[in-house]
Amino acid sequence: MSLIENLKWRYATKRFDSNKKLNSANLELLKESVRLSASSYGLQLYKVLIIEDEKMKALLKDASWGQAQITEASHIFVFCNYSKVTSQQIDEYLQLKASIQNLKTDDLKAYGDFMKNTLLGMAEEQMNNWTAKQCYIALGNLLAASADLKIDACPMEGFEPEKYNKILGLKAKGLNAAVIAAVGYRSQDDQTQFAAKVRKPLEELFETI
Amino acid sequence: MSLIENLKWRYATKRFDSNKKLNSANLELLKESVRLSASSYGLQLYKVLIIEDEKMKALLKDASWGQAQITEASHIFVFCNYSKVTSQQIDEYLQLKASIQNLKTDDLKAYGDFMKNTLLGMAEEQMNNWTAKQCYIALGNLLAASADLKIDACPMEGFEPEKYNKILGLKAKGLNAAVIAAVGYRSQDDQTQFAAKVRKPLEELFETI
Repeated sequence: MSLIENLKWRYATKRFDSNKKLNSANLELLKESVRLSASSYGLQLYKVLIIEDEKMKALLKDASWGQAQITEASHIFVFCNYSKVTSQQIDEYLQLKASIQNLKTDDLKAYGDFMKNTLLGMAEEQMNNWTAKQCYIALGNLLAASADLKIDACPMEGFEPEKYNKILGLKAKGLNAAVIAAVGYRSQDDQTQFAAKVRKPLEELFETI
Repeated sequence: MSLIENLKWRYATKRFDSNKKLNSANLELLKESVRLSASSYGLQLYKVLIIEDEKMKALLKDASWGQAQITEASHIFVFCNYSKVTSQQIDEYLQLKASIQNLKTDDLKAYGDFMKNTLLGMAEEQMNNWTAKQCYIALGNLLAASADLKIDACPMEGFEPEKYNKILGLKAKGLNAAVIAAVGYRSQDDQTQFAAKVRKPLEELFETI
């Protein structure tokens, strides 16, 4: 099973070779892996900014505790969740579903009402946490797809969301920087690549009932 | 790239064939995919319960809005995050890291102090949300690994965490049911398998800067 081998191969890359850039074919595959991610109700309540501009990367590095990955990696994926769930988002999803599955939106009204009743009553903080969680499924797919392509990646929470929100103008779009990933190719000098992977033993992590 | 094909193949299975069970080799591969998941600082602050007992599945079905997946699927993965981050968990991680990477725990003290300074100051609600998010990366890996093995899966948030916590005795262990997944094999009668996948178009989901 190559997925397991790929997951063993990958590691959180600390130093990237800034001369090696992702080609566009690989970038499209990574985007597709994110797009295909599961999300609650299929709503995909996030947007993913892909940063390749060097000046923007330098600005974001300052908002990421100065970590080298931000400027040395080829691309930075910024997973941005919608802070609020709105009736309009649900309607847009229903229209998309109707169009793809050749259905009438009228036939989806009951389903839409169910979603609205369930989701729109959440407190704002709860909404924000819930949509942020969905980003982590997509992050998982990005890491797996990167490893499949022997592209290195580093998932990162070590950044200042408020500063990202400001630099990238996210608030005005109702978005919030939830989690990021640097992708590219490891530097030969990255010592982390030689360290054995640390994971809890199966018997500690799992319990069968 | 077979991962993309696998992600296209998978769907949130609504009806499973209750006569088809996962064999132990496949179950071990799924567990390994979860174990290899990335997590913040590598701390893996969760435990995964794998439910195969039919009586327990029936109890959990009642706490899952009566959804058929819970009893019809072969196994239910319950991803449980640790509600609080503790100094002890961090020390245990450092011991594990020292043992696997053949280091002295003394040499990891500064790193441990950094983690403790960063993590232990979080408010309880924030801790709970943060460790829950890590479960979603592992969920993503489980879904990808299942698809790779042509095993069907259904990620689910449609359950009552408090009831799960009670039924499975999670609170006493400091755990909380964050998200679950039913895994097994689709029923021929599951109509969902014939529906086209609904995903936002690339240009709506991504923005390159």
